[in-house]
Amino acid sequence: QCDLTGWWENELGSMMYVSEVDSQGNFSGEYHTAVSSTQKPIEPSPLIGSQHLDKDGQCTFGFTVNWNKFSDSTAVFVGQCFAGDGGKEVLQTSWLLREKVDSLASDWKATR
Amino acid sequence: QCDLTGWWENELGSMMYVSEVDSQGNFSGEYHTAVSSTQKPIEPSPLIGSQHLDKDGQCTFGFTVNWNKFSDSTAVFVGQCFAGDGGKEVLQTSWLLREKVDSLASDWKATR
Amino acid sequence: QCDLTGWWENELGSMMYVSEVDSQGNFSGEYHTAVSSTQKPIEPSPLIGSQHLDKDGQCTFGFTVNWNKFSDSTAVFVGQCFAGDGGKEVLQTSWLLREKVDSLASDWKATR
Amino acid sequence: QCDLTGWWENELGSMMYVSEVDSQGNFSGEYHTAVSSTQKPIEPSPLIGSQHLDKDGQCTFGFTVNWNKFSDSTAVFVGQCFAGDGGKEVLQTSWLLREKVDSLASDWKATR
Repeated sequence: QCDLTGWWENELGSMMYVSEVDSQGNFSGEYHTAVSSTQKPIEPSPLIGSQHLDKDGQCTFGFTVNWNKFSDSTAVFVGQCFAGDGGKEVLQTSWLLREKVDSLASDWKATR
Repeated sequence: QCDLTGWWENELGSMMYVSEVDSQGNFSGEYHTAVSSTQKPIEPSPLIGSQHLDKDGQCTFGFTVNWNKFSDSTAVFVGQCFAGDGGKEVLQTSWLLREKVDSLASDWKATR
Repeated sequence: QCDLTGWWENELGSMMYVSEVDSQGNFSGEYHTAVSSTQKPIEPSPLIGSQHLDKDGQCTFGFTVNWNKFSDSTAVFVGQCFAGDGGKEVLQTSWLLREKVDSLASDWKATR
Repeated sequence: QCDLTGWWENELGSMMYVSEVDSQGNFSGEYHTAVSSTQKPIEPSPLIGSQHLDKDGQCTFGFTVNWNKFSDSTAVFVGQCFAGDGGKEVLQTSWLLREKVDSLASDWKATR
């Protein structure tokens, strides 16, 4: 219940696969993004994160996606699992995308 | 260069320890927060994340902190390392904190 | 085209009314929120903002809602108008909600 | 006390001028940004917003900056005034910058 293991798809068509969640809540997987702010071809990218293991099936979680196969950027997602009717689970997430900038003077615009 | 391994302190007095970064950029560690939105006593909390391994020492990174020792919340941080004068490294980060909410109807206020 | 004047409703059931947009793009109106993080009864709250006046009907805009009738908080919204098929306009927005905090030490958690 | 009227400068060197605040808390002014994500020359840009009028001098406020003199973007700021020692006032703000995008499909990356 609220085990992130498996495939998930968001409203943009991005998909992610989470492999086994360990006893501490840590997990890894692969993120297949449907959108990108770079010109290079998109590739599946590794993700690593952690979730709570609450009994009520509504746990919060977070993970990092390292886009190093085609960009200098890193994204983080944080969210919560909601167990809906009929056992269907929905993930609600917010994210931040950090782009690499040349210097501290450009730091203000690096995150979206 | 831009190896996150070691101790870091932010302007609020929170500290984090990052243990070894592996060849793919993955790392784990412990976050000692100085601030909390809950009433329970703060405890050091596990973090897990990933960084780029760029040669220029200005890589982006992200990590998840699982606050399960004293709360239902999860935080994510994303940022970039800047190599300053004299070899001193500075991390610039942004974060999101997800609090657990009862239902989807309260999802709008769950993240700060 | 992309005139914000009139009534708008979001997916949470909140509604807003924008009265006339002036020649510089400034406007005022009233926001009827369906959700609140306070316990006091919700009341319609004044909004004030500004929009671009691009010919293509896809202008960006922003506005401030002052919740002073029932809270110490202020919200800002920023977004863009999209002219869909059949002339139907859709607004995409992001928002920040600032709650009043006692001191600078609590500033980190004041915005969601 | 916590009257926004006057000149303010932030840590990036951007400056803003707020003219008179009316009895409802509404104000207008001009924002002189030191940074921009466009190539065009920066120009002072109009701002419009609203503040609370709390007696304790720690009111929250928000405002919109319309960058139409040199870009398609709009920014919103939300924050709180803190009355420090010796009567010096400090503003703490968060912001969102909305860039114009071509279509709904690019909406995910429009805000930073």
